[in-house]
Amino acid sequence: MVNHNGPIGLLDSGVGGLTVAREIFNYLPEEEIVYYGDTLHLPYGPRLLSEVREFVINIIDYFIIEKKVKAVVLACNTATSAALKMVQKRYQIPIFGMIDAATRRARQITKNKKIGVIGTEGTINSQAYQRSLMADDHSLEVFSAACPEFVELVEAGKFTGQEVENYAHKYLDGLIDVEVDVLILGCTHFPYLIPVLQKVMGEQVQLVNPAVEMAREVRSTLEERKMLKKAKNQQNKISGQQFLVSDISRISQQFLEEGSKFLGLPNLEFKEKNIFV
Amino acid sequence: MVNHNGPIGLLDSGVGGLTVAREIFNYLPEEEIVYYGDTLHLPYGPRLLSEVREFVINIIDYFIIEKKVKAVVLACNTATSAALKMVQKRYQIPIFGMIDAATRRARQITKNKKIGVIGTEGTINSQAYQRSLMADDHSLEVFSAACPEFVELVEAGKFTGQEVENYAHKYLDGLIDVEVDVLILGCTHFPYLIPVLQKVMGEQVQLVNPAVEMAREVRSTLEERKMLKKAKNQQNKISGQQFLVSDISRISQQFLEEGSKFLGLPNLEFKEKNIFV
Repeated sequence: MVNHNGPIGLLDSGVGGLTVAREIFNYLPEEEIVYYGDTLHLPYGPRLLSEVREFVINIIDYFIIEKKVKAVVLACNTATSAALKMVQKRYQIPIFGMIDAATRRARQITKNKKIGVIGTEGTINSQAYQRSLMADDHSLEVFSAACPEFVELVEAGKFTGQEVENYAHKYLDGLIDVEVDVLILGCTHFPYLIPVLQKVMGEQVQLVNPAVEMAREVRSTLEERKMLKKAKNQQNKISGQQFLVSDISRISQQFLEEGSKFLGLPNLEFKEKNIFV
Repeated sequence: MVNHNGPIGLLDSGVGGLTVAREIFNYLPEEEIVYYGDTLHLPYGPRLLSEVREFVINIIDYFIIEKKVKAVVLACNTATSAALKMVQKRYQIPIFGMIDAATRRARQITKNKKIGVIGTEGTINSQAYQRSLMADDHSLEVFSAACPEFVELVEAGKFTGQEVENYAHKYLDGLIDVEVDVLILGCTHFPYLIPVLQKVMGEQVQLVNPAVEMAREVRSTLEERKMLKKAKNQQNKISGQQFLVSDISRISQQFLEEGSKFLGLPNLEFKEKNIFV
């Protein structure tokens, strides 16, 4: 029997998934979350699929046994590509991934049927978004671009400014030329850059933030299954108990300062909990 | 009046375009070529379009005035994306680019309508191949992957071996999963890696080498226009006079040794000719 007052577990290889946590707070303000950033094994992108799957299973087991979660969000594109289908079969509780809600939304809102996808090299080369987009609709034109430097800029706390704009032009000018009217931000780090991305792409291009689509999906699924939290009177409180990482030495102070402002979580702090020992 | 016995001019930012020179030798063995590698401005990828256009115009002017070329090949994907349309308008002689012949061929040979494109980050993000593929045929599914390390492996003379195979898997496994049946090698460095690429993709996948398609196009266009060389009795001879670079210090000895073997040009050597001073 699932505890409907249990938290929602979010997992990522690091801090990128915090943009997903923010949307969960926005769309499900009564719910509690527990966040696990597997910084010990960061980044997941270059690892073998089998390794990523093992890490994900370890974290979900920890979430279920120790934290009594009622649902899990894979707040990480690599973990979603590598493990979502497998863990959805393995566990009884609802488990959500980054990709399909975003591609459904993109298909709904495109008018000219030209959709852009940006992500890390690993996510773009996995073809996960492209495949999901084209699965049902062969009339779409999908254009993708790998934007590796965006992750480093975000991790260094650089969300705006000339350097970010220069990289944005370098990566996105080709997508502007082909006139995509929707751009999917296929990396959980990228929402920090939305102001610059929107400026460079132009106002006529709709940005799809998969974290938002995922949060909507979590809300509607938990509603359908009558799994939303009963006690609605308390606003979500942030504490270090909820934000866990496997290696705290890999969280940069610079990111923590900029990131906590951006996320609207002024008291954001992490606690180390290595479940892999 | 164009001199039909003039050479064909090939330009690139470096040594990648030598794979194009090889196919020109194969398909037009009676013709003479002059190759210009603009190593002073290498790599073209990260530069502004306006800069690349200026370099290309400088080189074509030099080809026409000093070398009396009868045709020019932009043996470089970046130069093709940046300048082909503009120089085709500006000059009377035939000028060929890397992209359209390759995408025509890919469309002809695909059976499942799933086409992969690999290239540098710059070429992939420019969307040039993807746009050319989808221009006429909206039923195609195009999947692209940026493979930046391939260029460095080739420039270090590493064409085969475990390291190359590991990178090939990292970059290509996503394209294998979506079952592309045609793979376009959208970078002039990549033909050096064909044995590994074919092994990793599997024999059922057809590799399209744009250099081959371009050489066929050059042959048929020059035939149509009755511009093929009249004197057919002499085999092409290689000399340092034909292979020019703007900065010879940037040609690695290691590449020259492996590259000249691969290209079947045992006496390959470069002469420095800086036309930009």
